[in-house]
Amino acid sequence: MIGVGLIGYGYWGSNLLRNLINNRAFEVVAVADPSERRRVELRRHHIAARSLETAEAVIALPEIDAVVIATPVATHYEIARLALEEGKHVLVEKPMCASSDEAQHLVQLAKARKRVLMVDHTFLFTCAVQQIHTIVDHGDLGRITYVDAMRINLGPFQRDVNVLWDLGPHDLSIVDYILGEEPLQIEASGYCHANSCQADMAYLTLHYPSQIVVHLNLGWISPVKVRRFAVGGSAKTLVWDDLSSQEKLKIYTAGPDPQSQEDRNVLLAEFRSGDILLPLVSTREALAGVVEHFAKVIAGKEQSIMDGRSGMRIVQILEAAQRALDESLAHVRRVSVNRMRAVGS
Amino acid sequence: MIGVGLIGYGYWGSNLLRNLINNRAFEVVAVADPSERRRVELRRHHIAARSLETAEAVIALPEIDAVVIATPVATHYEIARLALEEGKHVLVEKPMCASSDEAQHLVQLAKARKRVLMVDHTFLFTCAVQQIHTIVDHGDLGRITYVDAMRINLGPFQRDVNVLWDLGPHDLSIVDYILGEEPLQIEASGYCHANSCQADMAYLTLHYPSQIVVHLNLGWISPVKVRRFAVGGSAKTLVWDDLSSQEKLKIYTAGPDPQSQEDRNVLLAEFRSGDILLPLVSTREALAGVVEHFAKVIAGKEQSIMDGRSGMRIVQILEAAQRALDESLAHVRRVSVNRMRAVGS
Amino acid sequence: MIGVGLIGYGYWGSNLLRNLINNRAFEVVAVADPSERRRVELRRHHIAARSLETAEAVIALPEIDAVVIATPVATHYEIARLALEEGKHVLVEKPMCASSDEAQHLVQLAKARKRVLMVDHTFLFTCAVQQIHTIVDHGDLGRITYVDAMRINLGPFQRDVNVLWDLGPHDLSIVDYILGEEPLQIEASGYCHANSCQADMAYLTLHYPSQIVVHLNLGWISPVKVRRFAVGGSAKTLVWDDLSSQEKLKIYTAGPDPQSQEDRNVLLAEFRSGDILLPLVSTREALAGVVEHFAKVIAGKEQSIMDGRSGMRIVQILEAAQRALDESLAHVRRVSVNRMRAVGS
Amino acid sequence: MIGVGLIGYGYWGSNLLRNLINNRAFEVVAVADPSERRRVELRRHHIAARSLETAEAVIALPEIDAVVIATPVATHYEIARLALEEGKHVLVEKPMCASSDEAQHLVQLAKARKRVLMVDHTFLFTCAVQQIHTIVDHGDLGRITYVDAMRINLGPFQRDVNVLWDLGPHDLSIVDYILGEEPLQIEASGYCHANSCQADMAYLTLHYPSQIVVHLNLGWISPVKVRRFAVGGSAKTLVWDDLSSQEKLKIYTAGPDPQSQEDRNVLLAEFRSGDILLPLVSTREALAGVVEHFAKVIAGKEQSIMDGRSGMRIVQILEAAQRALDESLAHVRRVSVNRMRAVGS
Repeated sequence: MIGVGLIGYGYWGSNLLRNLINNRAFEVVAVADPSERRRVELRRHHIAARSLETAEAVIALPEIDAVVIATPVATHYEIARLALEEGKHVLVEKPMCASSDEAQHLVQLAKARKRVLMVDHTFLFTCAVQQIHTIVDHGDLGRITYVDAMRINLGPFQRDVNVLWDLGPHDLSIVDYILGEEPLQIEASGYCHANSCQADMAYLTLHYPSQIVVHLNLGWISPVKVRRFAVGGSAKTLVWDDLSSQEKLKIYTAGPDPQSQEDRNVLLAEFRSGDILLPLVSTREALAGVVEHFAKVIAGKEQSIMDGRSGMRIVQILEAAQRALDESLAHVRRVSVNRMRAVGS
Repeated sequence: MIGVGLIGYGYWGSNLLRNLINNRAFEVVAVADPSERRRVELRRHHIAARSLETAEAVIALPEIDAVVIATPVATHYEIARLALEEGKHVLVEKPMCASSDEAQHLVQLAKARKRVLMVDHTFLFTCAVQQIHTIVDHGDLGRITYVDAMRINLGPFQRDVNVLWDLGPHDLSIVDYILGEEPLQIEASGYCHANSCQADMAYLTLHYPSQIVVHLNLGWISPVKVRRFAVGGSAKTLVWDDLSSQEKLKIYTAGPDPQSQEDRNVLLAEFRSGDILLPLVSTREALAGVVEHFAKVIAGKEQSIMDGRSGMRIVQILEAAQRALDESLAHVRRVSVNRMRAVGS
Repeated sequence: MIGVGLIGYGYWGSNLLRNLINNRAFEVVAVADPSERRRVELRRHHIAARSLETAEAVIALPEIDAVVIATPVATHYEIARLALEEGKHVLVEKPMCASSDEAQHLVQLAKARKRVLMVDHTFLFTCAVQQIHTIVDHGDLGRITYVDAMRINLGPFQRDVNVLWDLGPHDLSIVDYILGEEPLQIEASGYCHANSCQADMAYLTLHYPSQIVVHLNLGWISPVKVRRFAVGGSAKTLVWDDLSSQEKLKIYTAGPDPQSQEDRNVLLAEFRSGDILLPLVSTREALAGVVEHFAKVIAGKEQSIMDGRSGMRIVQILEAAQRALDESLAHVRRVSVNRMRAVGS
Repeated sequence: MIGVGLIGYGYWGSNLLRNLINNRAFEVVAVADPSERRRVELRRHHIAARSLETAEAVIALPEIDAVVIATPVATHYEIARLALEEGKHVLVEKPMCASSDEAQHLVQLAKARKRVLMVDHTFLFTCAVQQIHTIVDHGDLGRITYVDAMRINLGPFQRDVNVLWDLGPHDLSIVDYILGEEPLQIEASGYCHANSCQADMAYLTLHYPSQIVVHLNLGWISPVKVRRFAVGGSAKTLVWDDLSSQEKLKIYTAGPDPQSQEDRNVLLAEFRSGDILLPLVSTREALAGVVEHFAKVIAGKEQSIMDGRSGMRIVQILEAAQRALDESLAHVRRVSVNRMRAVGS
């Protein structure tokens, strides 16, 4: 059994703990959280694990082989570095780090110490994403032409990251997983409505070498929640609605029908040119898959689909998108100031 | 009664004809279409109107006071110019012209000849848009912060315009109508998947002086049809789904709840912070409203909400967006070529 | 060309007229309506057909080969009888007659005069019902086990018929068409909420020789409109939602999974045991199909799927259901009176 | 703290246990389950509680003040009787008992021993049902006229009860709670498709003294899951969709509009006559409410909304519905046999 320590027992940490307990490959040795209240709650539910105050105390325990880090982003690098230096395997929450320099250092360190470094891109283990990956891999959609994702809802506003760094890693890690290539060019715009220094809506457009265009619409200020992820292909188009319980995946037989082009009326009346298939999507909890995957990667039985390198790629894209977003916002500010001067003069 | 001539009896022309016949203010004198087949069909259904071959022949008729132009975009300017010069009132399909220079000339001509020049931005007369206009005007949503529109479907691919010029005028005219201001800055990207020289997907971001951000997602290559138009405000958010028959408009009581921020778990569980109201939307055909509006504007009883100036503003935005889109595509092409050279060397 | 007369130019009559004009096999000779206002409206739109006041006047015209009857139910029998006696083919609105005796007489008369007698069960020509018929016929669903239909909305309250006779013919004619057998036993209950002598909600359960159970939920007092029609089979289940524009038909791969039965948790988590297929449903107007069918049946090119016999079978079921409904209501009334007496004593 | 024992650690039992642990008023002393595998699983997650084999062993423990019974229906009576006789408070799963005689005996016993007897009609503590109860109580819907419920899905097929006894208690307990009256008359039909001796679809119609009609459509053989519960009133109608995460409750402003009656076309085009309101529904787990309620009723702080009498009323309705269903099935069988004889002769 792998002795595991959990660092951070907040909302996501408690889900991680439950899944670590459920998995027979792990023995949960200790949990660290700075909050006394949370440590009391922890003891009420799970008597077996020790509850400690600091990451250092958990990492120092000799029975610990691996740590799972569910703390604020700014602390990921330091805790993961310490754990790797002490020879522990690491599963860290997304985004992996606050900068690609940090991410790169952790990747090198893990390689040098021969330890597993994984980033919890949980969505890769949702049954829907697993199925999308298989469908795309099998070529069922034909040549992929675009991904169009919408991930909007109302808060929660994060204190440590903006909407790009909070919601972006989900879609970017899925795109990285299913496309298997890196973007050529990244465009971004957005705005800070609720708070002048932290973007709460962001639009990204990524261009890929294979001519795929990926568009993300991310937002924290929509009272209606949307989780729409479409993958367009030359033969078929797939739409994933993560909020639907019974109809998560829809595969549309697509492509403009050349015959219909002659008669505009006919095509206007038709919304699609073929059948729609809704494959059965099973409902295993994604985090159970992540935890199982972590155990198998440690045991050398699986290559990781969410290793340090993939975490680093996502952080690199986030950095580039942040630069593009900052430029767009700065440009709008200049135009706005010039306009006001012109009006004022 | 206003003697009216219809120029172009295609898909939209036949809808215009039906509504012109239904409106007692008009007498349909003549219809022009170059296709013999369509003129035969016309005579079978509507014996009263004369069927002619050319726009010139209709405009020349002395009983004609007004013309309605439903022809390809490239011909709008010439036909409208001729009609205005002959002293006829003009209702022209959207987009008004192929360039803002053309549009400006028509506006000047109509002013000089004291004739009505209107652009058929039909959506402004859908009951939903009328209601959105009223709701925004009354301040029900608070201060407007963003508009997020998605208008995607499968074709029909137009021969004379790309997706920006085909679908863009709908949302841009609605935005122009409800916001009543002009954008400071226009960003665009997109791609040409089906045809190398004509964009079939386009993403626009418009920044406004009042800090409103407008985002449009337009596409011809989605087998699933989406018509989503959200208007976010500081107090409430409105979402219009034009494909829903029973639930077209939803008004969400929104805004991040400061109290919930303390407890992250609670807010994650809540998808919205208040009630949703679905106001009753009546179902009058929009085009009937356009035709009635045209009659009243000719009679001097109403100011037009879709006059030549608004048509011109939309064409100006389309031109600016097209430039931004061309730049984005050229930049991606350069990066791609450089990458290939680097790989090849 | 078949000279045709339309009797009744109300809501449905105007749809019939448009489709008769569109069909090249027919020449619309005359339209009868007692309302002067409607006859004026008719002349404005369709100058070619004569507008008359009475059914008799239309039937008497020698150019008339066929009549289409779109008048209140109580008048169907007399008008259809007169037309058949004069040697005209007849297409009559549903329900065919107010009693099965009347229906039987018309069937005999049509046979004796060798004229076509058809009932406008329009739904049989919706593309969805045509597809359901084909799917069931091919055995794709396996052995049919049940039909469960829900047809509820808010009014319009009819003056001449209750909800059973107004909405029932739609689902009963579809069931008659796709099952091809007659019920053994008919149970019904319901209530008169808005009006003490006219049922505005009705629940029917029909048992068939092949063990199929058909259940109809019909109502006029639901502000939300529902059109749900499910056909369950031993292999698959089909659900038709007539209000959906893009997803009218869904075919579920069904059947309780024997393996899952062992582990209750697994099955509770799964909502279905297989894929869902949404076949493409075309969008031709059903009434165009009815009118074309009428022409072909008159020309001897097709056997009618909505002949007088099928109309008579529907009326027989309606009569039996009405008797069951009356018995149920009378029984409830007796129990209620007894209860009040017991309480009062 | 109330010492509590859980009897039955299956699917529902594990949910009960989690909620009992989360509630500070209870201390979970022991859990009984005959399965060794489940007792091992129990010990892995929750070390504090003793795991025993039999109900008797739990009831015999002196630290136990209350028991929660989550075992097959046939065993409810014996276990609850034993617990009450030993002076323990009882919360038993639904349906309370296999017969109304058993239920009546338990009610009398609880009264005699002055112990709390509650039935876990969990749905009464869903936030949606609590809100429906308040809305109906406040008279917001006007005079209630009908309830129309559809609860269909694919299995799981129960071994000990048919679909009526499995799914019926949910809707019947909600109806009992919000209407507060008992039915005058119960009609039922249904069928046994998968298994010749156990109904897997059932249609119930209940008539109430206040003229309310309640209709239930229950089924185990629908691959599509539906949870629809509509309450119609003279002023408004409420529809609860338990499967929707963001739009659980919709309140329609209803009632046929007398003015629209004149013009049939207008009303046909309108699907509803007023606004729709979607009140915010919170998302607390219902079972947490049940457990808290149990603690408060034991402490004498609340009157129970799910006491033994309400459990008994539900069992009485189930018995009456079962008799009606049996009669309907027998009648169909007789008609079928007669028909076959007639055909055979």
